[in-house]
Amino acid sequence: MLAKQGKPRLKVGILGATGAVGQRFAQLLADHPWFEVAALTASDRSTGKRYVDACKWLLRGGMPSSLAEMTLVPTEPGAIGSDVRLLFSALPGGSAGAVEEELAAAGFAVCSNASAHRMDADVPLLIPDVNPDHTALIRGQRARRGWPGFIVTNPNCTTTHLVCALKPLHDAFGLTAINVVSMQAISGAGYPGVSALDILDNVIPFIGGEEEKVEAEPRKLLGELTGDAIALADFAISAQCNRVAVRNGHLEAVSVKLRRPATRDEVADAFTSYRGEPQRLGLPTAPDPAIILHTAEDRPQPRLDRLAGGGMATHVGRLRADPLLDYKFIVLGHNTIRGAAGGAILNGELLVAQGYLGCAA
Amino acid sequence: MLAKQGKPRLKVGILGATGAVGQRFAQLLADHPWFEVAALTASDRSTGKRYVDACKWLLRGGMPSSLAEMTLVPTEPGAIGSDVRLLFSALPGGSAGAVEEELAAAGFAVCSNASAHRMDADVPLLIPDVNPDHTALIRGQRARRGWPGFIVTNPNCTTTHLVCALKPLHDAFGLTAINVVSMQAISGAGYPGVSALDILDNVIPFIGGEEEKVEAEPRKLLGELTGDAIALADFAISAQCNRVAVRNGHLEAVSVKLRRPATRDEVADAFTSYRGEPQRLGLPTAPDPAIILHTAEDRPQPRLDRLAGGGMATHVGRLRADPLLDYKFIVLGHNTIRGAAGGAILNGELLVAQGYLGCAA
Amino acid sequence: MLAKQGKPRLKVGILGATGAVGQRFAQLLADHPWFEVAALTASDRSTGKRYVDACKWLLRGGMPSSLAEMTLVPTEPGAIGSDVRLLFSALPGGSAGAVEEELAAAGFAVCSNASAHRMDADVPLLIPDVNPDHTALIRGQRARRGWPGFIVTNPNCTTTHLVCALKPLHDAFGLTAINVVSMQAISGAGYPGVSALDILDNVIPFIGGEEEKVEAEPRKLLGELTGDAIALADFAISAQCNRVAVRNGHLEAVSVKLRRPATRDEVADAFTSYRGEPQRLGLPTAPDPAIILHTAEDRPQPRLDRLAGGGMATHVGRLRADPLLDYKFIVLGHNTIRGAAGGAILNGELLVAQGYLGCAA
Amino acid sequence: MLAKQGKPRLKVGILGATGAVGQRFAQLLADHPWFEVAALTASDRSTGKRYVDACKWLLRGGMPSSLAEMTLVPTEPGAIGSDVRLLFSALPGGSAGAVEEELAAAGFAVCSNASAHRMDADVPLLIPDVNPDHTALIRGQRARRGWPGFIVTNPNCTTTHLVCALKPLHDAFGLTAINVVSMQAISGAGYPGVSALDILDNVIPFIGGEEEKVEAEPRKLLGELTGDAIALADFAISAQCNRVAVRNGHLEAVSVKLRRPATRDEVADAFTSYRGEPQRLGLPTAPDPAIILHTAEDRPQPRLDRLAGGGMATHVGRLRADPLLDYKFIVLGHNTIRGAAGGAILNGELLVAQGYLGCAA
Repeated sequence: MLAKQGKPRLKVGILGATGAVGQRFAQLLADHPWFEVAALTASDRSTGKRYVDACKWLLRGGMPSSLAEMTLVPTEPGAIGSDVRLLFSALPGGSAGAVEEELAAAGFAVCSNASAHRMDADVPLLIPDVNPDHTALIRGQRARRGWPGFIVTNPNCTTTHLVCALKPLHDAFGLTAINVVSMQAISGAGYPGVSALDILDNVIPFIGGEEEKVEAEPRKLLGELTGDAIALADFAISAQCNRVAVRNGHLEAVSVKLRRPATRDEVADAFTSYRGEPQRLGLPTAPDPAIILHTAEDRPQPRLDRLAGGGMATHVGRLRADPLLDYKFIVLGHNTIRGAAGGAILNGELLVAQGYLGCAA
Repeated sequence: MLAKQGKPRLKVGILGATGAVGQRFAQLLADHPWFEVAALTASDRSTGKRYVDACKWLLRGGMPSSLAEMTLVPTEPGAIGSDVRLLFSALPGGSAGAVEEELAAAGFAVCSNASAHRMDADVPLLIPDVNPDHTALIRGQRARRGWPGFIVTNPNCTTTHLVCALKPLHDAFGLTAINVVSMQAISGAGYPGVSALDILDNVIPFIGGEEEKVEAEPRKLLGELTGDAIALADFAISAQCNRVAVRNGHLEAVSVKLRRPATRDEVADAFTSYRGEPQRLGLPTAPDPAIILHTAEDRPQPRLDRLAGGGMATHVGRLRADPLLDYKFIVLGHNTIRGAAGGAILNGELLVAQGYLGCAA
Repeated sequence: MLAKQGKPRLKVGILGATGAVGQRFAQLLADHPWFEVAALTASDRSTGKRYVDACKWLLRGGMPSSLAEMTLVPTEPGAIGSDVRLLFSALPGGSAGAVEEELAAAGFAVCSNASAHRMDADVPLLIPDVNPDHTALIRGQRARRGWPGFIVTNPNCTTTHLVCALKPLHDAFGLTAINVVSMQAISGAGYPGVSALDILDNVIPFIGGEEEKVEAEPRKLLGELTGDAIALADFAISAQCNRVAVRNGHLEAVSVKLRRPATRDEVADAFTSYRGEPQRLGLPTAPDPAIILHTAEDRPQPRLDRLAGGGMATHVGRLRADPLLDYKFIVLGHNTIRGAAGGAILNGELLVAQGYLGCAA
Repeated sequence: MLAKQGKPRLKVGILGATGAVGQRFAQLLADHPWFEVAALTASDRSTGKRYVDACKWLLRGGMPSSLAEMTLVPTEPGAIGSDVRLLFSALPGGSAGAVEEELAAAGFAVCSNASAHRMDADVPLLIPDVNPDHTALIRGQRARRGWPGFIVTNPNCTTTHLVCALKPLHDAFGLTAINVVSMQAISGAGYPGVSALDILDNVIPFIGGEEEKVEAEPRKLLGELTGDAIALADFAISAQCNRVAVRNGHLEAVSVKLRRPATRDEVADAFTSYRGEPQRLGLPTAPDPAIILHTAEDRPQPRLDRLAGGGMATHVGRLRADPLLDYKFIVLGHNTIRGAAGGAILNGELLVAQGYLGCAA
């Protein structure tokens, strides 16, 4: 294992290191046992500056001192050291797609948090707890595109925790219908993101592009790998996404219809007994348990629970029968950790463990 | 009409006048064209004091000066002047049921915001826009219980706006299934109610007893009066209720399955063309239109829209097809105006117009 | 008086009509008895569009329908109709100074909320309640600069309410020292302004450039007009400015040292008995009383009191002896009404009443 | 030293363990190297129940598992095990004074966060960083009152951080005048404490009894021990206390007049070079440095900085000349850690180190 004493850490880069998600990458990677941050990229306005000078740090605890003095470089193949193999992308929506392709073509492995390539047929949309076998798409991606590198993506923040919670039910009982209404934290919009004038004493019942993602991505994530393609899962899914005055932590009110009947105890047991590949492999960023089932009638709550498991756990609570579908419950997860940077890092760890970076266990 | 120039106003009382809902009654009744506040009741701790001395006023604009000097009396038949005919009840849950019965037995008409009698078979659960004919239950109520007075109730705040929005669809297309996830304002919990420590930077995915009310009351409100009983409507309904950091205005993410197919335009038209009995009668507190259909993609929002129509309107927005049921949309309404005090006052106005207070138009 | 029945209203324009302060101007001027909005200007991005299409409306109650269809024009003399005499400027800091000069040179009277010209020796920094005689500077301004028009400014939002509260003390007892610590609303930073990520669960103890203004402007406002110059008032003043999670309403903790001794009753009486020129003239936007002295131990509060007097009143509370200086008290006022757009409009009204617009009473 | 390997920890109790401050004690003591929690007391309503059942836990991370199963006992000498020597008191204001006396009379050492005995002439009001020598009052207290035990108190939360920041200036230059305006967190009012309806979109410019404490306690804390009495420091001090919508962390806008002139650099140096007795003794809960001087123009901020040094550090920022007094600056500190439970625990550690508990280093 990479984590073994004395073994050198894999050199990685953070694309778009000064933004909100970029800072989470920096925070989570600064003391990572397998990865060593060797490159930070930024837009033209910031390249050439030290990270500490170009970045308005938003997270508690301050910028990691090991990264503060690093010089920001352009997000271009030639500007990133050739000893760097793996890139974590926090690039903003507009430019991410083309830039990530260019980097994969130049030989880098890119774990992207951007949405550009998520639904590409030959790009894994990956949650290691859910569909670790989907990395098999990488082979075809490289062959078809002629890339020495490759792209792997993690899903939208709301999708991530929803699907982490759905996976045990999908495996145990099958799913035919899913309804989700989200109450999403402001950090999901980046920085400066949501204006205080818009959200103080308010809820905004609209997040551009979000519902489309939440209605599409779960069908790929829970789809089946056949040959080198994914057959989308065939459940119906509806999402309504709202922005609330919470810093971190997306809350989701979910109801589901199961393919096979199950008692409430069987459903609860499916949640609590679930163990995924990250737990089996002991990946450094994997929470254990991955799913925390709450029994208190008013939990989970964003402020109280979002940081459990280092912000990597998915919380489920208020599991009860649903008069319309079969069961309803609350899902909560940290949107910028497991739902963004942490999710991408866990993808990177899985790729290492599966040997995709030439340095497996 | 009572509103006619020179005609004396009907004397009314407010039960539980010092609480959050009691204050809304005071604010909305202070300059009412039909009603004159002649009695304010309170618990033992406050009786004998002036309203201004016993009440920590919570609403903008200060206590109405016409009420400030009134002396609070006990919530007992003998303490309320015999010239008072109509009582608006903001009594707290525990004691409301028995006290209201005692007052009805003593001859008062009680418009109650409490939940105690809402589901009683012979007590109208009334929204004048929705089921004005249900006041016909009053005759049987008086006969069976031997009361010279009677009790009429208004629904839970979340139910009220939900059913105001469902009514046009129920009439035009029929409803077979309803899913609602609410994001409810803190004022719904009264004062002091929600602790700031619980709700700052948080959502609480639980409100005690709320989901049961929201799943039961709509079936009575949209039920059919046959003889002197209500046949409950037979749709399925599921509710998930959450508390958010908003002062006033409950937002609800709703999806519905219709009995008969309808295009999006037909559904939109049902909302915009709806006129209820309060609008036809021109009741003083009736909003017109009762339903405001928003076309902006991010509306309605609590802070921007809750006070439209004097806080009596129901807002609908983001109407769109639903992948699971037929349509989904956002509902917003003011929870302490139309959802509580204003709703009870509109009930009182309907009772006057229908002649139940011996002083009809 | 202009307000007389049948008299045509004075045509006015709003410079920078789409921003946060520009919207307040629009809201407050839409039904003004003396002024009729005849021009709305905006930056290049928006000119040529209808107001309703170019402007994301932020205030309750929606855009005034009388202005919604108006076409936005460039902020240039030639683009503004020649029948417009008076311009209200909500231009942003950077460009305001030069543009306002150009417009004054072209013959317009400009009531500016921008800071550019506030401290110019020949430009009135005007609060009609405080220093209505300072408009005498206009004559010299026109002569010296050769302008057919002129510029008048209103002070910073925090300065405005501070000086409104200080004026009665300055008149009655003299002032030698003032300490003020402000807790300022987010709307003071414009839109989008303060990021929700910065202010939720937080206070920011810094507002760029603010303390300098609050320490300078009061000395001009309370200075004495001698000939055609202002002798700055000679008290010492210190300001510490903080941003808090409040939508509207700046709260200020003030302590003062008086030149002549005064009892607490005398100080209270100075506040309550104060009447300024706007009250004497009955200007349409003038609050009466201008100063509200609260006696409740926990008032004034932003949410409860900011809208008193239409947002034009200044609130004083918690008046008590100060162990360091002589007295300490709380000041509150609405920052975007009296502290910005409303203050500028009151200036315009004073100019009309004083005959500076050729149409006096 | 107690901390030495293998040495048994001192058994301690928490008085009023279920409240907001009681929970902080539990959180901070659960893994304390010197102290072992052996008793948790509560009011009648909760005694006999397990801690986990009687206590609604408010803090992140959940109740310490080592305490969850403990049975709550009455706050009476006989109910607390005789092997317990030291009690940390989070008792509420009303009852604390008499109960703590009774416990001291029964032989317990009481480190109290309550205000009842703070200003008693023979009770140390103690901040180990500031006046560690004041524990000498204990001897006289025991003699005069005939107690085998004793009481030591820590100051009000706002006083604590103010005086931590003033101490280096008092030592280096002397102080003649202090002005402080606080912006205090809601957790300072306990749980449920501040109603969300009172503080959302608001500031409350009043906290009952707070200003009196902040104007009195610093004079005792910075007073001089002469014989067995404290000569109060003779500076003038004025406080204005406000409640803001912040969870934790009191921000204070301070200005001071020095007895001897000092340059800004000398003042800055006094802050950064200060080391107190806790740092010299290496007390387990002592932050190092005790004072963090910020140079960024907009720091410290509650959300970003309150947890530095485990919530035990005092932050100073925006140090600059003051036009009225000599210097002004911002002070920030965590109100329920250093300002309450953590401060009392540090007092307990100092008492151990000084030998007052018969088990010194």
